[in-house]
Amino acid sequence: MSLATSVLAGERLALARLLSQIENNDPAGLAALSELFPHTGQAHLVGVTGAPGTGKSSLVNCLAYYYRHPPPGEHQQKIAIVAVDPSSPFTCGAILGDRVRMRDLSGDPGVFIRSMAARGSLGGLAPTTSSMVQVFDAAGFEIILIETVGAGQAEVDIARLAHTTVVVEAPGLGDEIQAIKAGILEIADILVVNKADRPGVENTERALRSMLELGHPTRRVIKHHGAVELINVTEEETEFDSLWVPPILRTTATKGDGVPELVQVIADHQKHLETTGEREYRDRARLQTELEQLLQGNLVSRWRQEVSESQYQEILESLIARRISPHQAVEVLLDGGQPK
Amino acid sequence: MSLATSVLAGERLALARLLSQIENNDPAGLAALSELFPHTGQAHLVGVTGAPGTGKSSLVNCLAYYYRHPPPGEHQQKIAIVAVDPSSPFTCGAILGDRVRMRDLSGDPGVFIRSMAARGSLGGLAPTTSSMVQVFDAAGFEIILIETVGAGQAEVDIARLAHTTVVVEAPGLGDEIQAIKAGILEIADILVVNKADRPGVENTERALRSMLELGHPTRRVIKHHGAVELINVTEEETEFDSLWVPPILRTTATKGDGVPELVQVIADHQKHLETTGEREYRDRARLQTELEQLLQGNLVSRWRQEVSESQYQEILESLIARRISPHQAVEVLLDGGQPK
Repeated sequence: MSLATSVLAGERLALARLLSQIENNDPAGLAALSELFPHTGQAHLVGVTGAPGTGKSSLVNCLAYYYRHPPPGEHQQKIAIVAVDPSSPFTCGAILGDRVRMRDLSGDPGVFIRSMAARGSLGGLAPTTSSMVQVFDAAGFEIILIETVGAGQAEVDIARLAHTTVVVEAPGLGDEIQAIKAGILEIADILVVNKADRPGVENTERALRSMLELGHPTRRVIKHHGAVELINVTEEETEFDSLWVPPILRTTATKGDGVPELVQVIADHQKHLETTGEREYRDRARLQTELEQLLQGNLVSRWRQEVSESQYQEILESLIARRISPHQAVEVLLDGGQPK
Repeated sequence: MSLATSVLAGERLALARLLSQIENNDPAGLAALSELFPHTGQAHLVGVTGAPGTGKSSLVNCLAYYYRHPPPGEHQQKIAIVAVDPSSPFTCGAILGDRVRMRDLSGDPGVFIRSMAARGSLGGLAPTTSSMVQVFDAAGFEIILIETVGAGQAEVDIARLAHTTVVVEAPGLGDEIQAIKAGILEIADILVVNKADRPGVENTERALRSMLELGHPTRRVIKHHGAVELINVTEEETEFDSLWVPPILRTTATKGDGVPELVQVIADHQKHLETTGEREYRDRARLQTELEQLLQGNLVSRWRQEVSESQYQEILESLIARRISPHQAVEVLLDGGQPK
C-alpha cells in the first residue's frame, strides 16, 4: 500500500511521515502529494492571525475543542491545526465545563496538530505550508486551522491561503497600533477582540469599527465568460446581499466565552463564500499562484544545473566590481554572449 | 548626448525623465541604467521607517535640510529623497532659526525628491526602488534617504537595500506594540524616539532598550578566504570594537531638536560599516539578490514567450479541476510530456 493510500485510509503514522517528507523536500513526498491532490478541495481553511499577547493560540485551541465537542445534533468535525508553537501549554477555558489544554486535544484521533516550520518573524509562511494543508485536506480533515504570528508577510500569505481569515486583537492596544495594522485589517474576514473580560474592550472594538468603515475594501464577486472576478464596489452599491462586511466578535478564550459564536460566524462566512462564488475565485487564484511559484523555482533550478558554477561566480564578481550592470549580467548568463 | 551622460552631467530634467522611464520599464531606461551602473557604489543609503504617526516624514525633511545647511566647516552634501508621499506639507522645525517646509527643499538644486511607486501597505518596496536609488547614486547624490511606512515586507526590503536603517518610534506606544515590532527592531541600525517633547518618552525609550537587549542580534564581520561574512556573537564576545550596538536617540522634528545628533550617528554608522567591512558585505549581498531576482523574472518571461497561451490555460484548468497536481502541471509545462 502506498503512503498516499495509507493517508487516505486515515493512518496517522503515514500522515506524520508524509508531512515530514514534504518538509524535507523528499521526492517521495512530492509523488505522494501528487497522488493525493485529486482528493483536495473539500476542507475549509481558517487562518488565525494576531500579535503576540492577543491570546490567539488559546483561541485556536478553543475552536478545535468546540469543533470536536459540538452541541447535540451538530456535526462533529475532524480538525487539523498548523501552529507556530503547538507545544505551548495554552489553556482553553471552561467550555462545556471542561478545562482544556493542548495535550487534551492531542489524544483525540479527530485532531491532528503540526508545527509550522519557522521562518523569520517578518518572513512569511514557510513554502511547505500550502503542501501540508493539501495533505490534511486529502486526509479528510474538514476544518484546517492555520495559526500565524501577526507581523509582516505571514499575514499576506495566510490571507492568500485561507478561505476565512480571523484577525485577533486584544484590549489595551492604543490608537497607534491600529494605524500600523491598517494593512492587516484589509485581509480580515472576521475580527475578534479576545481577552474581552479586560478593561478597554469597548475602545478596542470602537477603534476597529472605525478603521473597518474607513479602510475595508467592499468587494463583490461577479461572474462573466465563465470566469469569476472580485471587484471593489462603492458605498452606493452595498445593498447587494453578496457583500461580506467583516463582523467584530468578542471572545475570552481562557473562559471559553464567545467561542460558539465565532464557530457560527466562520460557518456563515464559509456559506457566504460558497453561495457567492468567492470560494471558487479564491481557490483558482491560490492554485494559479502556487503553479507560478513552482514554475519559477523549477525554471531557476533547471537553469542553474545547466550553467557552470565558475561562470556564474565570474559574472557575479564582475557585477560586484561594477564592471557590468545587473541587466547586463542577466544577458550574459542567459544568452551566453558578452555584455553590449 | 545620451540620457545617461546628461544624468552624469547633473541635468535634473534628464534625471527626472530617466526615473520615469525606469518606473515604466522602458527599455531605453534599462539601457541608460546599465550605462550608469559603473558609477554607482558611492552614495550612502539611509532607510527611514516607522509607523504612521511617528513623524518620520518630518524627520526625513529635517535630515535633508541639515545635510544642506551644515555647521560652518562641514561638507554640504547632495541629497536625494525617495518618499512614500513627498507632497505632504510636513514641517521641519526651527533648525538654525528657519521654519522649513518640503517646498523649501524642492527649490534647492542639491536636493532631489521623488515619490515611491506605491504598493499595498503590506506588500514591500516597489521593484523599481532599487534601480531608482542606483540612478541617484550615479548622479552624484551623496546621501539617499528612503522613507517607508512601517508595516510588513517593506521593512525587510529597506533593510536589504539601505546601508543604515533608522527605525522611528514615538511616545504613547504601549508594550503590545513593542512586542509586535520585535521583528522590526532586528533590522534597526539606529533607533529614534521622535516627538520626544511628548509625555511618555522615557517609557518608550526604556521599552526599546529592554527589547534591544533581549532581541537584537549582535553581529561581527569576519573575513576569510577573501569573502566577508556576518556572524552572530554571544555576549561574552561583545568587547570587540567591530560591534555596532544600535543607539537610541531622541528627536523632536517639529522643533529640529536632536537632528544634528542623528546626522552624527548616521555618519558614525557609515564609518563603522566601512572600517569593519560590513559595507562590502551588504553591497555584495544586495547585488547578488538583485541578480537572482532579475534572473528569475527573465527566465519566467522567456519561458512564457515560448509556451503557447492556450496550452498554459489548458494545464491551469486541469489543475483547478484537480485532475493534475501542481507538481505534475509543472512537469507537463516544462517537459511537454503527459502527467505520470
